[in-house]
Amino acid sequence: MTRVYLDHNATTPVYPEVGDAVSSLLTTKFGNPSSAHAEGREARVMVDDARRQTAALIGARPSEIIFTSGGTEADNLAIMAAAGSGGHIITSSIEHHAVLDAARYLEEAGRVELTVIPVDEDGLVGPADVHAAMRSNTSLVSIMYANNEIGTIEPVEEIGALCRERDVLFHTDAVQAVGKIPLDVHALPVDLLTLSAHKFGGPKGIGALYVRRGVRLQARQHGGSQERSIRPGTENVLGAVGMGAAAERTNNGLVAEAARVTSLRDRLEKALLDAVDGVKVNGGGAIRVPNTSSLTVEGVEGPALLLSLDLEGISCSSGSACTTGAQAPSHVLTAIGLDSEAAHCTVRLAWGWTNDETDLTRVIDTLPRVVRELRELAVFER
Amino acid sequence: MTRVYLDHNATTPVYPEVGDAVSSLLTTKFGNPSSAHAEGREARVMVDDARRQTAALIGARPSEIIFTSGGTEADNLAIMAAAGSGGHIITSSIEHHAVLDAARYLEEAGRVELTVIPVDEDGLVGPADVHAAMRSNTSLVSIMYANNEIGTIEPVEEIGALCRERDVLFHTDAVQAVGKIPLDVHALPVDLLTLSAHKFGGPKGIGALYVRRGVRLQARQHGGSQERSIRPGTENVLGAVGMGAAAERTNNGLVAEAARVTSLRDRLEKALLDAVDGVKVNGGGAIRVPNTSSLTVEGVEGPALLLSLDLEGISCSSGSACTTGAQAPSHVLTAIGLDSEAAHCTVRLAWGWTNDETDLTRVIDTLPRVVRELRELAVFER
Repeated sequence: MTRVYLDHNATTPVYPEVGDAVSSLLTTKFGNPSSAHAEGREARVMVDDARRQTAALIGARPSEIIFTSGGTEADNLAIMAAAGSGGHIITSSIEHHAVLDAARYLEEAGRVELTVIPVDEDGLVGPADVHAAMRSNTSLVSIMYANNEIGTIEPVEEIGALCRERDVLFHTDAVQAVGKIPLDVHALPVDLLTLSAHKFGGPKGIGALYVRRGVRLQARQHGGSQERSIRPGTENVLGAVGMGAAAERTNNGLVAEAARVTSLRDRLEKALLDAVDGVKVNGGGAIRVPNTSSLTVEGVEGPALLLSLDLEGISCSSGSACTTGAQAPSHVLTAIGLDSEAAHCTVRLAWGWTNDETDLTRVIDTLPRVVRELRELAVFER
Repeated sequence: MTRVYLDHNATTPVYPEVGDAVSSLLTTKFGNPSSAHAEGREARVMVDDARRQTAALIGARPSEIIFTSGGTEADNLAIMAAAGSGGHIITSSIEHHAVLDAARYLEEAGRVELTVIPVDEDGLVGPADVHAAMRSNTSLVSIMYANNEIGTIEPVEEIGALCRERDVLFHTDAVQAVGKIPLDVHALPVDLLTLSAHKFGGPKGIGALYVRRGVRLQARQHGGSQERSIRPGTENVLGAVGMGAAAERTNNGLVAEAARVTSLRDRLEKALLDAVDGVKVNGGGAIRVPNTSSLTVEGVEGPALLLSLDLEGISCSSGSACTTGAQAPSHVLTAIGLDSEAAHCTVRLAWGWTNDETDLTRVIDTLPRVVRELRELAVFER
């Protein structure tokens, strides 16, 4: 059975171009970019090229890209960097745990003050709320570009402008935005931006923090001069090459691909709302990234729906992958006002480059039927 | 021209088996190990297998392996973990900068006291010196298993035993030992041990910290439950698979390979000492890992020798790759008593799995000639 993968927010299949780029050098190009000999110089060129490709995806200068082991490390680097000077951090209640937990860690350690701003029912952070939360010692604002569970795009431009007025650093976790929508850091008032390769067709284990020229960051690990001493350690050459190739492929035709995916997502939502009662699209009142549907289906437990769909060959998720196994309801769904039962009855369908019209047909044929079956079963079990 | 790669301490070419393992899943197996669906479960199995393979290389339990982005991160994790309780760190003057700089960072931040123990002329740390340095508040001793520049194997068993008597945590950076000599953590009094895949035929960007069962470590980054919450972030699945495959290949016939490499290394040293005056083997009085020659060649600048050999198709290094470009003499060579001129006249030849008898013949034919040519040039320039 061909499977339909609808969990592109958890991770994406690697593009064939990325596979080719990595395979071609896997065993033949192995130098340490810090070595002075031929093999080392060759590796240095590969990392430099990857940095250029990655920078181009977000309109950055290559020197503004610091490669990390992924989004979590980049988020932690951005948040912890603010702790160097202490002060006050503002973030939102629907951030990824990599931001929220890092900020809470610093607060609990007594190193910063922390304000966590609530969101509205679509998951939107209000710029006025950010403005009202600012203090004389506010050192960092971190608001995500797009939410991983519901897809809501935040008003980062307005929030960034507020930060710039006050000379406050602005970080945005753009892991779920990069590759889904066009993004140009030089048209955005953002100082630090997180990206992760495996969310846009690259390999896992590599990401980056964009650090605007002139912004100084403390290193979090020590021991070498790689990545401008901000992030020492032998470079992940294969990962960087994969990230660069994914960035280049993503950058080609991004707008057309976004439109294509939006169409798949929207037609599924419409078909489902037409066919099934008691379905709510979370974040549906906001502008969302093209690919994400968060669906609360009355009376149908998310984990049961996920399992049934998995058996039908359709992969989706209930909540984010990062908290799989957690018993508590999603902090994102709670933050937008869902009670714990509604949060428990929510699944996320996240479309991507592997999906096509055949997939759409299959999901439209399958999902309403599975929902009906689970509801009948629930009635029978009462 | 076929090249002779003699810089296996900087990084190693990836084993064909590793290439096969990674290539086979690069574009086809892409799940997030935290996802509940089929693709996720498949990725989870791959990471579990890789953890078992990696653990087997050092005699650990799989649950004692925490994957990191490499040796630098693992060293930093080990050192910073000791800072949770503050106290006093003991380390040596010839550690990798990932250990030394992390410890110095903590000292400068006022979070720990630090003692850096000197070494003898072969780079050996004296267990009696460690004993004498211990204080009532000593919380961590970190002494490397084998040195990256000169290959000296440290008396970690004795030092670990001292630590165990005092109930002090013992960390060893075994990046340059793992894969070169047999190593069994359960026969060793070690609590934390660093390893790096790209030093034994695996890819760059993946490493691990062995954490003995019962040892509790603070996380350094936050945001998920991966790697027992000690090191959250989506797993580097390809990297882990590559590390596991490299560990398995390395584990097969390790002793025979160590003997083979020792023979290549020793015959080169003998041939060079016979053919050229004014050559000293650094660390030559100590037990060394099989593959490493650190050679001080009177009157021949290391960078010039490296460049000449590079043009002859032979890759080696002057000092460690991590500090290439640094103007200061190697801290390791200085620590064993070389003056800055002697340190400047030193090259490292590091043999490995890619080398064979043909390579040996070529180096024996080339190195004495190049040394003579450079010395003649130096005389001419005076």
